[in-house]
Amino acid sequence: MTEERVEQEAVQEEQEVVDDRLLRLAAEFDNYKKRAARERNEYVALANERLVQALLPILDDLERALQAASAHEEAKLEEGVRLVHRSLEQLLRREGVEEIDTSGAFDPHVHEAMLARASDEAESGAVLDVMQKGYRIGGRVVRPARVIVAE
Amino acid sequence: MTEERVEQEAVQEEQEVVDDRLLRLAAEFDNYKKRAARERNEYVALANERLVQALLPILDDLERALQAASAHEEAKLEEGVRLVHRSLEQLLRREGVEEIDTSGAFDPHVHEAMLARASDEAESGAVLDVMQKGYRIGGRVVRPARVIVAE
Repeated sequence: MTEERVEQEAVQEEQEVVDDRLLRLAAEFDNYKKRAARERNEYVALANERLVQALLPILDDLERALQAASAHEEAKLEEGVRLVHRSLEQLLRREGVEEIDTSGAFDPHVHEAMLARASDEAESGAVLDVMQKGYRIGGRVVRPARVIVAE
Repeated sequence: MTEERVEQEAVQEEQEVVDDRLLRLAAEFDNYKKRAARERNEYVALANERLVQALLPILDDLERALQAASAHEEAKLEEGVRLVHRSLEQLLRREGVEEIDTSGAFDPHVHEAMLARASDEAESGAVLDVMQKGYRIGGRVVRPARVIVAE
């Protein structure tokens, strides 16, 4: 073989190695995409299941409270409802839910004015009353607080 | 330029093109991996948020029921608790939760025997009573039903 021929073959070989790497990388990329989509769905299902499982004992307590209601055990019913309320509040707090503060002035970013009412005591623009509590998750408003504002 | 030189340069150029594609594909793959991980976390957060949002009206109803309790409006309290129970049950059903059947014989795959009790009427191995309801999500047992079995 001539020297040039040898060199040409070496170049050819190197090119084949690179082509091969390219093909394998493309195939790997493709597999990765498929796996990522599958994993995303599995993660969502798992995340939901964790939350749903945490709700089962709350459903149990509700059913016990209803049994107490059927038996006309009013004190037990009320205690049961308090327990359910506490559990649900704790669960939501663990999920990053925070109640929106309504103690100060009306804030259009987190409050929704349902009514304006004249007030002798409160300053204009103060929140007088809360019709429905508002909530944030991780800083983002998921439901504004529905409030009555002083004129 | 000699003919060989021209050919060599063409080969060299082609190799550079392939090298370039390889580098770009590797960079693209890397970006994709980062985006997929980010998206997976976002999907989980979104899925949770959807569930958490569905729980807020249930928390509202619970708070209304507690207000009725404070006002000693027993009928209103009981009606409120029934409403909360119905809403939570519906939410769980929408998430694919199914109650485990306990009407037949004891089934170790879905039941957990807490007690065995003699019975004149029931056949041996029949479920006599349910201490805690069991649930499935999408066919999978997330909590077995805790039952009392006939000896």
